[in-house]
Parts: sequence; structure tokens; C-alpha cells
Amino acid sequence: MSRTQRQELDARLRHAPQPSAPATIEEMRAGFAALMATFPLRADVTRTPATLAERPAVIVEPAARTAGPGTILYFHGGSFALGSPDTAMALTADLVARAGVRAISLDYRLAPEHPFPAAIEDCVRAYAALLEGGSDPSQIVFAGDSAGGGLSVTTCLAARDAGLPMPAGVVAFSPGLDHTRTGTSMRTKEEADPFFTMAGMEQTGRLYLAGQDPRQPLLVPAVLADLSGLPPLLLQVGTHEMLLDDAVRLAERARAAEVDVILDVTAGVPHVFQAYAGTLEEADQALDRAALFIRQRLASGA
Amino acid sequence: MSRTQRQELDARLRHAPQPSAPATIEEMRAGFAALMATFPLRADVTRTPATLAERPAVIVEPAARTAGPGTILYFHGGSFALGSPDTAMALTADLVARAGVRAISLDYRLAPEHPFPAAIEDCVRAYAALLEGGSDPSQIVFAGDSAGGGLSVTTCLAARDAGLPMPAGVVAFSPGLDHTRTGTSMRTKEEADPFFTMAGMEQTGRLYLAGQDPRQPLLVPAVLADLSGLPPLLLQVGTHEMLLDDAVRLAERARAAEVDVILDVTAGVPHVFQAYAGTLEEADQALDRAALFIRQRLASGA
Repeated sequence: MSRTQRQELDARLRHAPQPSAPATIEEMRAGFAALMATFPLRADVTRTPATLAERPAVIVEPAARTAGPGTILYFHGGSFALGSPDTAMALTADLVARAGVRAISLDYRLAPEHPFPAAIEDCVRAYAALLEGGSDPSQIVFAGDSAGGGLSVTTCLAARDAGLPMPAGVVAFSPGLDHTRTGTSMRTKEEADPFFTMAGMEQTGRLYLAGQDPRQPLLVPAVLADLSGLPPLLLQVGTHEMLLDDAVRLAERARAAEVDVILDVTAGVPHVFQAYAGTLEEADQALDRAALFIRQRLASGA
Repeated sequence: MSRTQRQELDARLRHAPQPSAPATIEEMRAGFAALMATFPLRADVTRTPATLAERPAVIVEPAARTAGPGTILYFHGGSFALGSPDTAMALTADLVARAGVRAISLDYRLAPEHPFPAAIEDCVRAYAALLEGGSDPSQIVFAGDSAGGGLSVTTCLAARDAGLPMPAGVVAFSPGLDHTRTGTSMRTKEEADPFFTMAGMEQTGRLYLAGQDPRQPLLVPAVLADLSGLPPLLLQVGTHEMLLDDAVRLAERARAAEVDVILDVTAGVPHVFQAYAGTLEEADQALDRAALFIRQRLASGA
């Protein structure tokens, strides 16, 4: 039974050996890459290195493009300071295979070398490059996890403000949407969250902010951004997450802005639980719901 | 484009001829039945009259049971005073065909002849009869629209409190979940809602309450009920609904009670917009999402 799977996963995460605090950003990146490499990569996708708007990227193709010629523009997680298309590849590939549509996963610039708003600039440029290359915006869906889930939303906002057309939809897994960390779940879920701590979030947050005032719409989209005109949103989040209220508050304000929004909450699962597909039934089912959402968004624009 | 479809539907509903206020409950029921008979019934389901726990019911079978042997226990809408399985049959049949699973739609007792809690008693008895007949609770999903969406939730609550096992899930289309009518959308959406008025809601509400105090969990599940132990919920609602906040508040409290809950909000569409499948793309897509949810819930228990 899946209730058991949720509890086993929680116990496993809590009893994982805790490495000593890494001293450098390079050590943090290596540790994150090693952690993410433990997630098995499915064999039925092909990966091709590419360049998009002068940034490295990886094109991820399903065995069968059952959803037609659309594109998922994917943004990996890693607190804006860690990660790459490779660290999110198992999850990206799983989404691609289920949706039957290719993804392009962008290697956007990271903090501290490149603080806010470098990542968003790269993501908007990548989207603009797809449009300039002839892609119809109705055939593009943004998706991302964690910090990348946040980028899937802020890239829409920045693209809209730059006069670009909106993509067909946004899928955000456990998005980070508030650099002021004011969500109630930041306190109420700190015990339940097996991954994050307030101290850890503040550490990576400082790298991304680099002394800038966080009270800006692109740093706090869950609270400060004008969401009008955004395409349909699918937000998936677990209740064992300090970031729960980031998604909850964005959904609330999206409804008020007359934006279609699905707030899909799974109880008792951690941050980006979709990564546990294959061992956690809720993960497989959440990814299948995300795949249906993507196919529906691409079909609406076809 | 679907944005156009939403606007056309809204204009059509607003310019519909307004009948003079009916004088009797029988006139109200006849008017509702005539309205609902205008929705086309798909041909690829079979309907068989039945009896369930001494109440009339209709078994609705898809052409192909692609989701296996499960059952949707369906509760029609009609403000607890109007309607029957027939008035919701177009929507029920559409859900059955898409989910690939049969439904049993219950003709529960109506107010004013049978005020609260008669409807809930009938629904719980129907569920208990399915269990006594050998159905596995993991192979039953409750679904309903409007008042019936409310019953899909309150029947769970009453069944839980009676010691019955929970069904596999609940699908509620635009559920009514607050007889105290305290949702903010009761005021903020009265202009946008083409169907309901506060006066109309109070009229049918009085019939159902029959002088009873509405401040009871089964009359205000969105605010007063203990939701712990409920199965996964899918709540679909439009933003052009006075009932929007009924679903929003239930979802909020379900999350707090560690219940899986999907709050699926479509902008600019009216109460039970799923009934407009075939002419409104959002309706077709929402029903397909509900069908996937039902298949996932039945698969989890298989």
C-alpha cells in the first residue's frame, strides 16, 4: 500500500548519513550531483547536447513523440546555485517519456558567480530563441523542479513584461517562489521536511541575492508579482515541505488573477517527490497527471 | 480558441430567457429537468434502472470497462431539492465513458419533503449496500456535482463516523460545502455567476434546513468538519461561481488534515462547467483529468 511507501521513504531520508557541512560551493555542487546521480535514468529517452541562446542545454527525446511536435522547456533545481540539466535528468526523462514530447533542459547560470537575475535572463533568452527559431508559443510548456519550478513561473513573468507571448502552460514541481521566506510552512513544516532547514535555505539564498533586496516580484512571485495573463499552471507539492505555502499562495493569487491553476497536493511526501517514481506510487501518479496536463496544453494550441 | 469559447458560453447564459419565478417545488423541479434535458446524452453508455438500499438508482455502463471492475457512486446536483439521476445523466455518462468504469447514480431523497440529513443518510446507506454486496471500498469512488459534490464529501464524513471504510477517492464538481454561505465568493462572484443568486440559494437552503441550525459539520464541511482520514479529493470549480470558496476552503483544510487534495480551478467558467463538454474545450479537458484521477484511485487499490 502506498501509505507504507510514503512512510518508508520518509524514514529512509531521515536516516541517511549526514555529510559534514561542505566548505565550498564546488563541494556543495559535487555533493548535489552525487546525490542526484543515485536516481535511475530510464533508458527509453535519448539525450543530445545542444546550445540554446549561447547556453549549454540538453535535448531529451522520448522514444515516441505521442504528443506531437511540442517542446517542454525544462529548468532544473538546485537552489539557484547548484545543479545542471544532468542532475535533473532522471526526472526530466520520466516526464518526457510519459508526456510523449521532447524537452530542452537549460544549463542556466548559477549563483554565486551569477546572482539574481542572471538565471531568469538566461531562461527568457532561451525561450525567445525557441520562438525566433520558429516554435509556436502554443507548442511550448515550461516545467521545472524546486528552484527550476520557480524559474518556470518567473520566466513567464519576465517574458510577459518583455512583450513575448505566453507559452501554453507551466508545470512546477515543489517550486520555490518566495525569497523572503514568509510562508507559514517555513516554520510549521521545518520538522516534517527531511531536506531543507531554514539555515540551509538562507545560505543558498544569500548566494542568489548577493546583497539585493528580496522584496521584488521576480524574487517573491508568490506574494508580490502581478500574475495576470499567465498561462494555465499546474503546481504539485507535498505536505512535508517547507515550500508548501509558496505553491499555495501562488495558486491563491493566480485564482484571483483569473489564471487557470491546479494546486495538486500530496500528503506526507517530501520536496520533489516525483523523483521517487518507481518506488513511490504517488510519484508515478503525479507525473502521469503532469503528463496529461502537458498534452492538454499542447492540444489546446494545436 | 478556448478563451473565445468561455466568453461565448458566458454571454449565452446571460442572455437566456429568464422564466418568471416558479411558484411551487414541482414547477421548480420541472424547470430544472427541462433545462438539464437540453444537454446531449452520449450514445456509448447503457443505462439500467436499479434499486440500491431501497432507493431508485441508475446503473450507467461504459461501452468498454477499461478501468476494470470499479464503481463510481454518483450523486446528482439540484440544491438538495431538485434533480434526479436523469438530470445529471449527460454529465454522468460523459464521466463514465472517459473513465472506463461504471457508475451507479443514486436517487436520494429531496427537500422539502425530506430535509437534512435525509440525503446524506440515503447516500451512506447506498455505499454500505455496495460494501455489503461484496464491493471492495478501494474499488469505489464517490463523485457528484453541485449539491451532489457536497454529498460526495459529506457521505465520506458520515461513513467514516459510522465506522465504514473510506472509498478510494472523491471527485466533486463545483461542490456546495457551506450552508452558512460565508465564503467570500458568495459576495465577490455574485455578478460573475450566471446561475446563482444569494436569494435563490437561500430559498433552496431553507427547504433543506427546515429550520435546523446550519452550523453543523455535515452542513458546513468546508469550515466545520474534521477532514482527517478522508481519501484523496479532486475538487474542480470555476472562477465564475459563488461556490468557488466552498472548494477553496475545503482544499485548505484538507491539506492541513494531511489529506491528498487537488484543487483544479478553471478561470471564467460557470458552475458545473463540465456539463458543456463538446462545446467548451475546458470542460472536455477537466473531465479527462477527472477520469485519470478515478483510474489512478482505482489502480491504487487494485
